[in-house]
Amino acid sequence: MVDNPLITLTTDFGYDSPYVAAMKGVVLSFNPNARLIDLSHAIPPQDVRHAALLLSGAVLYFPEGTLHVIVIDPGVGSARAMLYIEIGGQRLLAPDNGVWTSLADDCEPTRVIQLREPKYWRSVVSRTFHGRDILAPVAGHLSLGLDPTALGPGVTEWVRLPVPRPKREQNRVTGQVVFVDHFGNLISNIPGEALHPTVRVLIAGQEALLVPSYSAAPSGTLVAVVSSWGTLEVAITQGNAAKHLNSGVDCPVVVEMVH
Amino acid sequence: MVDNPLITLTTDFGYDSPYVAAMKGVVLSFNPNARLIDLSHAIPPQDVRHAALLLSGAVLYFPEGTLHVIVIDPGVGSARAMLYIEIGGQRLLAPDNGVWTSLADDCEPTRVIQLREPKYWRSVVSRTFHGRDILAPVAGHLSLGLDPTALGPGVTEWVRLPVPRPKREQNRVTGQVVFVDHFGNLISNIPGEALHPTVRVLIAGQEALLVPSYSAAPSGTLVAVVSSWGTLEVAITQGNAAKHLNSGVDCPVVVEMVH
Amino acid sequence: MVDNPLITLTTDFGYDSPYVAAMKGVVLSFNPNARLIDLSHAIPPQDVRHAALLLSGAVLYFPEGTLHVIVIDPGVGSARAMLYIEIGGQRLLAPDNGVWTSLADDCEPTRVIQLREPKYWRSVVSRTFHGRDILAPVAGHLSLGLDPTALGPGVTEWVRLPVPRPKREQNRVTGQVVFVDHFGNLISNIPGEALHPTVRVLIAGQEALLVPSYSAAPSGTLVAVVSSWGTLEVAITQGNAAKHLNSGVDCPVVVEMVH
Repeated sequence: MVDNPLITLTTDFGYDSPYVAAMKGVVLSFNPNARLIDLSHAIPPQDVRHAALLLSGAVLYFPEGTLHVIVIDPGVGSARAMLYIEIGGQRLLAPDNGVWTSLADDCEPTRVIQLREPKYWRSVVSRTFHGRDILAPVAGHLSLGLDPTALGPGVTEWVRLPVPRPKREQNRVTGQVVFVDHFGNLISNIPGEALHPTVRVLIAGQEALLVPSYSAAPSGTLVAVVSSWGTLEVAITQGNAAKHLNSGVDCPVVVEMVH
Repeated sequence: MVDNPLITLTTDFGYDSPYVAAMKGVVLSFNPNARLIDLSHAIPPQDVRHAALLLSGAVLYFPEGTLHVIVIDPGVGSARAMLYIEIGGQRLLAPDNGVWTSLADDCEPTRVIQLREPKYWRSVVSRTFHGRDILAPVAGHLSLGLDPTALGPGVTEWVRLPVPRPKREQNRVTGQVVFVDHFGNLISNIPGEALHPTVRVLIAGQEALLVPSYSAAPSGTLVAVVSSWGTLEVAITQGNAAKHLNSGVDCPVVVEMVH
Repeated sequence: MVDNPLITLTTDFGYDSPYVAAMKGVVLSFNPNARLIDLSHAIPPQDVRHAALLLSGAVLYFPEGTLHVIVIDPGVGSARAMLYIEIGGQRLLAPDNGVWTSLADDCEPTRVIQLREPKYWRSVVSRTFHGRDILAPVAGHLSLGLDPTALGPGVTEWVRLPVPRPKREQNRVTGQVVFVDHFGNLISNIPGEALHPTVRVLIAGQEALLVPSYSAAPSGTLVAVVSSWGTLEVAITQGNAAKHLNSGVDCPVVVEMVH
């Protein structure tokens, strides 16, 4: 147990509603010494895939033992479980909808527990806001040193988010856009190693110029670089590739060997 | 006095301007140990009602003694007073425009003080930014343990935000939408207890299905649930009710006894 | 060295991408006791001028020794340098693109160092995300007490952002809008002292009413006030001047002596 434990928050609640604030209040009412870090509250509503990619680009950078509370929860009020997860040295609280399973490309969880013990929840649990009524108080308790085995039974089955994989053929790899960032850069699921001088990159009927960094091409050029995730990314230098190509998640990206 | 006092910030300053940052700097320059928590900076400009509802869904969850700084201040530079308020165990700093009075449904303030003592303000006070020049330094001083009675005289009169109340007739209750959240859910002022199986809920000429939670109806259904505030809420499952019904704040909501 | 050093973050990464979260994780992985303060992540993409004005309205309010990490970096991956700067008692980390030089109207930097020592960076440095791979770890090290001279050589030359200056003629001053805030208020580069009763203020073919504060004119009036920066600001009371005048950065503002 640390003195001022780190708790991050990731939600689709937006910035104009009271829900994030309510969760912060509840966590702090259980542990006034918790240190809250906002990861994002701008996940598009109910967009579990967007959240999964965002988390995969962020969570593993945190110090070991950081507790991440994730509330993208289209199934709130249903029978879907709520989970405590240990993975890659991090601790997560999330609904059982697969939002965290894309972290597991690099590492398998070392522990997954179903939250079943109501004594660590708010005394009245609503049907519409489990982030406030279950996850926030549980985060408070954990940050005070509660043994996670007190929260409920360990489980070995959980919902896994289907992850599209690139398809390899003789002379080409066909992947897809899996995330569009704030700049309109298109992040694909093709490993960055594919970007060597003997290939060409095709998207939406256009060819992207292979460059080592955005700044290596004039403004307005369609380029392919290695993304922050280590995968192939298509961007327009100083511009917005998603808008320019009218492209988004699931759009095919092709890497072709040049003869 | 605590070692690392909690100070929350709620403003209509947005995220692209320096005003929130300036306030954070001033608070920390008075008390470098203060812990700042963002509640929201996305209150629509000058929208005191939106802020009041947001605060009513958030403030009372915080630990006792938390200091909440609220700057939705269309009257900045006028003769409107600035207040220090103690209510429900919380401490607030806000312009005297009623933004905090919706908290008082559950509890009356135990102390209200007008900020009149300039020695706790910045040495030069602008006419356009009292959040930075008055509230932030006062928050810093209070968080260091200043007795609030030093700030000015106690008062017993203040501006109260008019709160629309549902109208009860023999077989129906007519309320209205009081808040639209980030998902486009329509929060009404009708108590959630009204939702029993013998009623029907009408809004914008349509009937909403009574369900215990969003997930109890297929995607795209107009439903009525109990909101995070404990009131009747109208939502579209996996969708945006405000857009779909072209509805917003003040739109009537009717709960009718079924014969 | 303080126990819980303050580190602020200013980026153009937006709120829906993992980049801010990744930087927070890296800073905290180097120094789990750092206290992170969000200034803004809503700088328009690559808009160095917007960031410069925002910083000039915020940075100098912070306690002495605060470390400000600034990532508006259109040149990422190019040969542009990364800098450590001491100015006005503050410490900054930023790409060498002039984003910080508007702070220097009031004060010159007392030290500028080029970041050249990779041992304080992440072991693998990407070509697209120096905020995560260079600035965040350097911030972590500095916050732990690292002597900044270890980061690289001191320099006396750096990129300066061109700052438009108002032009003074016999009976008039012609300046321009340099920042549009969240309310649509138009902040000019004309010193606030210009606003005395013997002048008139012209913008986009209209005359703005000189008032001491927004609240001194009826709703919907085009007014000129002294901005939070101390300069002339044009606003519409309870409205959005930028939209109403279809005006923005670089739009001329004229202050004319009245005969």
